[in-house]
Amino acid sequence: MSQQKSALQQVRGTYQPKLPKALKSGRATLQSGEVVTPAAHAETIAKLFPHSTGKPLLTLVEGDQPVTSAPMTVGVVLSGGPAPGGHNAIAGIFDALKAANPASRLVGFLNGPKGVFTGKYKELTAEIIAEYRNTGGFDMIGSGRDKIETEEQIAGCEKTLKELGARALIVIGGDDSNTNAAILAENFLARNVPIQVIGLPKTIDGDMRNQFIEASFGFDTAAKTYANLVANVCRDSASARKYYHFIKLMGRSASHVALEVALQVQPNYTIISEEVARRNLTLSQIVDDICDMICRRAEAGKNYGVIVVPEGLLQFVPEFQPFFADLNKLVHERKAEMDALPDKEKHKFVADALPGHSGELYRSLPETLQEVLLITDSHGNLTVSQLETEKFLIITVKARLEELAAAGKYKGKFSALPHFFGYEGRCAPPTNFDADYCYTLGYAAVQLIIGGVTGYTVSARNLAAPAEQWVMGGVPVASMLTIETRKGKEVPVIEKALVDPDDAPFQAFAAARESWKVEDAYIFAGPVQYFGPAEVCDAPTKTLELESKAKRFG
Amino acid sequence: MSQQKSALQQVRGTYQPKLPKALKSGRATLQSGEVVTPAAHAETIAKLFPHSTGKPLLTLVEGDQPVTSAPMTVGVVLSGGPAPGGHNAIAGIFDALKAANPASRLVGFLNGPKGVFTGKYKELTAEIIAEYRNTGGFDMIGSGRDKIETEEQIAGCEKTLKELGARALIVIGGDDSNTNAAILAENFLARNVPIQVIGLPKTIDGDMRNQFIEASFGFDTAAKTYANLVANVCRDSASARKYYHFIKLMGRSASHVALEVALQVQPNYTIISEEVARRNLTLSQIVDDICDMICRRAEAGKNYGVIVVPEGLLQFVPEFQPFFADLNKLVHERKAEMDALPDKEKHKFVADALPGHSGELYRSLPETLQEVLLITDSHGNLTVSQLETEKFLIITVKARLEELAAAGKYKGKFSALPHFFGYEGRCAPPTNFDADYCYTLGYAAVQLIIGGVTGYTVSARNLAAPAEQWVMGGVPVASMLTIETRKGKEVPVIEKALVDPDDAPFQAFAAARESWKVEDAYIFAGPVQYFGPAEVCDAPTKTLELESKAKRFG
Repeated sequence: MSQQKSALQQVRGTYQPKLPKALKSGRATLQSGEVVTPAAHAETIAKLFPHSTGKPLLTLVEGDQPVTSAPMTVGVVLSGGPAPGGHNAIAGIFDALKAANPASRLVGFLNGPKGVFTGKYKELTAEIIAEYRNTGGFDMIGSGRDKIETEEQIAGCEKTLKELGARALIVIGGDDSNTNAAILAENFLARNVPIQVIGLPKTIDGDMRNQFIEASFGFDTAAKTYANLVANVCRDSASARKYYHFIKLMGRSASHVALEVALQVQPNYTIISEEVARRNLTLSQIVDDICDMICRRAEAGKNYGVIVVPEGLLQFVPEFQPFFADLNKLVHERKAEMDALPDKEKHKFVADALPGHSGELYRSLPETLQEVLLITDSHGNLTVSQLETEKFLIITVKARLEELAAAGKYKGKFSALPHFFGYEGRCAPPTNFDADYCYTLGYAAVQLIIGGVTGYTVSARNLAAPAEQWVMGGVPVASMLTIETRKGKEVPVIEKALVDPDDAPFQAFAAARESWKVEDAYIFAGPVQYFGPAEVCDAPTKTLELESKAKRFG
Repeated sequence: MSQQKSALQQVRGTYQPKLPKALKSGRATLQSGEVVTPAAHAETIAKLFPHSTGKPLLTLVEGDQPVTSAPMTVGVVLSGGPAPGGHNAIAGIFDALKAANPASRLVGFLNGPKGVFTGKYKELTAEIIAEYRNTGGFDMIGSGRDKIETEEQIAGCEKTLKELGARALIVIGGDDSNTNAAILAENFLARNVPIQVIGLPKTIDGDMRNQFIEASFGFDTAAKTYANLVANVCRDSASARKYYHFIKLMGRSASHVALEVALQVQPNYTIISEEVARRNLTLSQIVDDICDMICRRAEAGKNYGVIVVPEGLLQFVPEFQPFFADLNKLVHERKAEMDALPDKEKHKFVADALPGHSGELYRSLPETLQEVLLITDSHGNLTVSQLETEKFLIITVKARLEELAAAGKYKGKFSALPHFFGYEGRCAPPTNFDADYCYTLGYAAVQLIIGGVTGYTVSARNLAAPAEQWVMGGVPVASMLTIETRKGKEVPVIEKALVDPDDAPFQAFAAARESWKVEDAYIFAGPVQYFGPAEVCDAPTKTLELESKAKRFG
């Protein structure tokens, strides 16, 4: 690579990430703690992972001896969607390996897990690493969504790693990738294959988390990137005073990103999917609540505002699951009949043909939506999954406001604009937090390898404190597993950490949100800063801060 | 206001914008230069603006005496879409007024020009100004899109300003708003109304520019904000390696924003509307050129990339103007017939009914597009203006690639994602450049008022140099006017500065772009920084830099 670089890239390339005290000392050692067992299905998991069960928590503390190792080769692979800081995780691994023995080597597998089982890799030299320090993206070695699950895949991994003479594989990924790491580790343990497997917790959605891992990496940068954009749109909304902006934010399963942005920016309205599910809300109730706010703002002379919507919302609205299933069935069975009809008759046909509540729900939707819902791809499948939640809401809210206006209950003007912030944040250059955190995760992974550990994910606690005080270690992947039914099969998985409406971050949001609806209480996050005062550059997320306070005082 | 503020807001609120030497000295004085006349229609304009014609260029230089004034009241109004730095322009006006006489007052008209002619305003105190220093948005006093054109409107302005005892009105806006300022100034001059009118050049599109005004404010921040996002998407594209991202950027008339982002980030492909018009390109030619690149990338194993599209593209494709007109006519005249037909027959009906090339063009479009084009609003009008250019292109490119694949000429995979970056940038907090520039513009406007000038726009030259060396002054608005036919009427307007394919910025782009197509030459701009080294925080746009170099060496 001899790429041109921006001024910021050049300066930022020289940033030296902060390490916690135990790692910085160069004398880190592992301390064993309690043995942890899965919260549910412990027996089933023990049967599936006999060699990985009954392992203790590990903490990295400052020891007496400098960390050294025999020369070794370690492989690293990136798995799943990119998250800011991935390159720093690899840099942390590289630096820790070289600190323990300058003759050690790091190999990067190309384009995700299939790079491991098909043997596609490149050696990561100091020059390559230097090119990517503190940059966003996963493009140093690429990523991929393949799993390491089947016997062939596991055999392929073993072959590649043995040929390389690798002592360990570090898997950087989310819940599924860390589960895969556990499966691989267990398999190697069972057959005395002397290769260790360590996982790092990555995902911008923030849902690979638990009491041992306070944050998944990338969440900090992504949430701050979106917060800046949402704040800019809030400012635009209050300046132009003529649009309602409906902003969809990434997060298919969990609404942590939407919640974090709400806490940082205080937009007028934020939907949290997990609350919708918990309270068993219907689409109609959600729309009514938004319209209630819009009516109140109209009375205050405000025909503008900002509404934040998590990507996965519709999957959390209980009535939509059977509705989509019914509609899909209908389209598959009676498409020819439908296609022969002009639009209006077609929609009546569909409403009549759908069973029970699904028919009612379809009939209740605005005509444009009735149309959009019927669009199929070239295989005749509904494209509902591509249905843009923010546009869906706009159409539904608009129709409801027209009813309210007709009844004399709403006198405002409603113009709405849809937004989706997602791809802008997944590869943003990491914040100081993520630059430090990812580097530390990578650095810690190497200490676990030197400590002889396998089947562990790097753990991280006390993250709301300055980096120097972070507590790093390892948690056995098996202890984080539960059993879920996927495609009719019982499989071990790491449960996704959803927003818990009882936890401090949601509680803080719920306590304040009423006051954001009519008064504009927008807070302007601003773009991510690297060089200013620590309170601007190094602050943790509100989620971390509130959870940490709750732990201290709760 | 007792809003909560982010850490960045608090620190950034204390930033003191840099002023050029002449203004910083506190002894600025006006120096008269040559008399400038309009480049075209000079006689017509002289007739329309007899009292504003034949005025000299003015330059602010350092004089001998401290600038002082009798206590005075000045009004300020924001016009049109928001642009980063508007609040700093007002802060510059405020500080300059107070520096010349602490008893002077600044009044802000609310929600745009109609605030002037209907007499809605608020006094801007030091407390209010302090709240908004270095912030984005126009929410301090709001903005609006009304014009000041009719006799009633002009009379309304006069009444309000006289009641306030105002000595001057400062209009902050784009080409039309500055034209309005000229009309108002001329009217007041003709009737000896002793109120001066001064304009400031604002627009993120960068099209309110000429040899006297090197940049419109807001362009720097908006372009840098988009550049960061586009760079992040480039990084994502190269990391995930599975999507083509089609990114639409703001700019209905001019493609300066797209060009600036292309120069900063070097995405794989950027369309410049003005080049399309200059070369008389058809949609089919544009699509072929994009597909050619996609085929070459596929051969290099790259089924991903980033394509930047200016918002106004379709208006610049010559064949589309008659097409939209024909389609609109058809839909108005024969909608009932069309609605009675199932989709496939409907599209055939439309293709047959459209005259000549319009029918061919319609027939050549993918089916999904044929459908989208026929969508009407509740008044039966085509919603073509809402047609999303980036999606239009995706559908057209996809259809063409399918043809190429069928002919064995393309073996890649094509998945595309649309983006629109616009509202995220209009109210971003200003960069150092815009914070300094806007403050300076406001500060200079007050010097023009003290100098007794009216019917001028603040001019700004040497902007690629550090702020200290900027050359501020005034240019008679009348000298920038030309005559255009709008809605069948000849009217004076400031011509929009479009991208000139012969100028240095486009030439630099054209010379380099071939090498960005297959190799990924992405440059990662990073988020706007406020506190780092000057080369990171204070750099001008590439547009300014290249134009400035061309001037020096050209």
